[in-house]
Amino acid sequence: MAGNGTASISAAERSAMARARELALLGPRGVNPQVGAVILSPDGRVLAEGWHRGAGTPHAEVDALSKLAPGEARGATAVVTLEPCNHTGRTGPCAVALLEAGVARVVHAAADPGEASSGGAARLAVAGVEVERLDEAEGEALIADWLFVQRTGRPRVTVKWAQSLDGRAAAADGSSRWITGPEARAHVHRERSAHDAIAVGTGTVLADDPKLTARIPGVDDAPQPLPVVFGERDIPAAAALRAHPRGLRTAGRDIEAELRALAADGIQSLYVEGGPTLASAFIRAGLADRFTIYLAPTLLGGPRTAIDAIGVGTIDEQRRLAVTRLEQLGRDLLVEATTESEQ
Amino acid sequence: MAGNGTASISAAERSAMARARELALLGPRGVNPQVGAVILSPDGRVLAEGWHRGAGTPHAEVDALSKLAPGEARGATAVVTLEPCNHTGRTGPCAVALLEAGVARVVHAAADPGEASSGGAARLAVAGVEVERLDEAEGEALIADWLFVQRTGRPRVTVKWAQSLDGRAAAADGSSRWITGPEARAHVHRERSAHDAIAVGTGTVLADDPKLTARIPGVDDAPQPLPVVFGERDIPAAAALRAHPRGLRTAGRDIEAELRALAADGIQSLYVEGGPTLASAFIRAGLADRFTIYLAPTLLGGPRTAIDAIGVGTIDEQRRLAVTRLEQLGRDLLVEATTESEQ
Ligand SMILES: NC(=O)c1ccc[n+]([C@@H]2O[C@H](COP(=O)([O-])OP(=O)(O)OC[C@H]3O[C@@H](n4cnc5c(N)ncnc54)[C@H](OP(=O)(O)O)[C@@H]3O)[C@@H](O)[C@H]2O)c1
Ligand SMILES: NC(=O)c1ccc[n+]([C@@H]2O[C@H](COP(=O)([O-])OP(=O)(O)OC[C@H]3O[C@@H](n4cnc5c(N)ncnc54)[C@H](OP(=O)(O)O)[C@@H]3O)[C@@H](O)[C@H]2O)c1
Repeated sequence: MAGNGTASISAAERSAMARARELALLGPRGVNPQVGAVILSPDGRVLAEGWHRGAGTPHAEVDALSKLAPGEARGATAVVTLEPCNHTGRTGPCAVALLEAGVARVVHAAADPGEASSGGAARLAVAGVEVERLDEAEGEALIADWLFVQRTGRPRVTVKWAQSLDGRAAAADGSSRWITGPEARAHVHRERSAHDAIAVGTGTVLADDPKLTARIPGVDDAPQPLPVVFGERDIPAAAALRAHPRGLRTAGRDIEAELRALAADGIQSLYVEGGPTLASAFIRAGLADRFTIYLAPTLLGGPRTAIDAIGVGTIDEQRRLAVTRLEQLGRDLLVEATTESEQ
Repeated sequence: MAGNGTASISAAERSAMARARELALLGPRGVNPQVGAVILSPDGRVLAEGWHRGAGTPHAEVDALSKLAPGEARGATAVVTLEPCNHTGRTGPCAVALLEAGVARVVHAAADPGEASSGGAARLAVAGVEVERLDEAEGEALIADWLFVQRTGRPRVTVKWAQSLDGRAAAADGSSRWITGPEARAHVHRERSAHDAIAVGTGTVLADDPKLTARIPGVDDAPQPLPVVFGERDIPAAAALRAHPRGLRTAGRDIEAELRALAADGIQSLYVEGGPTLASAFIRAGLADRFTIYLAPTLLGGPRTAIDAIGVGTIDEQRRLAVTRLEQLGRDLLVEATTESEQ
């Protein structure tokens, strides 16, 4: 049966797992998880490497096996970042492929949470393959957003805003350049690049005509998130966003439905950049999981609050957060938090 | 002439200065500074100690000299936390009293900034007394608030408020107990106790009926600041504040005039506890020097902002602050800041 401890895992297997995680990242983020695999000979030599290149293409284990001659994997060990699947989709179950190749031992990290696809480890064990689990936390961290999508059916949502200490996004006349300093603004670009998509409302497009690209000094090939504009108003033909390298996606006002559609198209994480109306709508709908709030050491007062009504009528309905990080960025403060349920 | 370096200051004089600072704190805070003095024999023995007990009573040096027999101070050294005064008020100039007592040497810390009272060190030096300056920074820290009053004619003002991360003091229906946790609330009591007076508007008195005492667990004799209620509405006869151990002071709506009157009555530091209307009025008038802002990790949205209009029409008029301290207090954040001019 499947092993519980990790005592019997060799040094070669541990370093193969680290390599498998690197391989996983060669694959795209999308509807499928990023997975990497390494096939080791019984004496610990690397026989083959593989990774998953996205929905409809071979899974990582199968990709690695495909590089071997028939019979070459007999008695071998497969090291995989995710539990081999037990599910016939566009490809056959990986558990079966491993059995057919004669693999004697499987070391995997994260468990497969899928209703249809889980059970691969048990199937292998029943067939007499040794199954061990290793580096569970790292394995799950690798596919955290994908696991979130599996659990909720929508991308993980980070809502970002910049405000004065007293919670304003702009002075009374709407002017706001710049509340935060260059360090905070640079941080925003790195955050953009770390998400699959970025959301603004039509209000921000019409007011600011933003580019919404991730611009990181010294990095020419920063990943560019897909820009998504929420709202019913038209986006001007001359909008800077229309020149975005990823193109432009529009979305309506039903945030929950739009998030489901984004997840179906492989968006695992969404960075909501506002403005106040859209950010508040996400919070009000309970669809904000993480918050990155830049607090500039300034007071503005007046009507232009960074967040407006979020459905808190009385103090018992407050939206309690858990602060996960607090940092000084130049003169500004960065507060990262999650909803308490996300903890 | 007066010395510049501190090379010629003895160990006995240094420890006498530390003692003089302790003595200073035995005197009251009020219209006069807290000052302590130690008289040393030529060979460094303590001959007498003195401190200032408030306006109309002898200054620290004179208090110390009064404990000596005639002639006993001849050739002695006077160690004083503040430059001896050169001014005939309700008491004669200390510089003269030291000369008449035959003191040969004076070591002082802070310089006297008073227009009428300064010049004591020069007068002593001209008369042949050795004058040295020591521990200038500590000497000025001891009387920082008093120096502030001398410079500005009003108490130093700290404005405090508690808010959600998004800048609200209460939920839409006005409920707010509790936004911040017990650590932040305990911190407020220590802060109250560290100020000479505490201000609220009539709005807070009518809404909350606060006691405004400083309650510090394990400390029975915490200093109690004078409570001051700003505004024109009447304070109910049954208000809890009427039982305050320091009594109750009322003030009108002209904040600047009221601050001058408080300074004239010996209030060197004022802790403004709000609510939003009063705190905003202080900020708008440019009469807030320091800020202690408690940020609770929660979102409230809605109309009840902790700060309302403060006269910032456009971004160039923003009230830039300098953060002086950032601390986690339980689950809350404390941001201490000053106006940039206060830096
Ligand atoms: N401080 C910051 O961090 C920050 C960040 C971004 C922008 N801003 C500022 O924010 C200002 C724009 O503010 P804004 O609030 O008008 O912009 P916004 O939030 O970007 O856009 C508001 C629009 O979002 C659309 N929307 C989509 N789904 C919605 C829903 N479920 N509920 C409500 N609205 C929904 C609506 O568009 P339709 O009416 O077209 O349907 C609505 O008018 C600009 O001045 C910009 O500079 C500040
Ligand atoms: N979050 C916090 O840290 C905090 C702290 C304290 C209170 N609060 C809450 O604040 C609420 C009360 O708010 P509030 O704003 O009504 O109370 P407030 O600021 O305590 O009182 C407002 C009153 O201050 C008087 N005032 C004096 N000088 C003024 C000036 N120069 N300009 C304007 N007003 C001046 C006016 O009284 P007259 O009209 O009588 O002339 C005004 O109505 C309560 O619910 C309380 O719980 C929150």
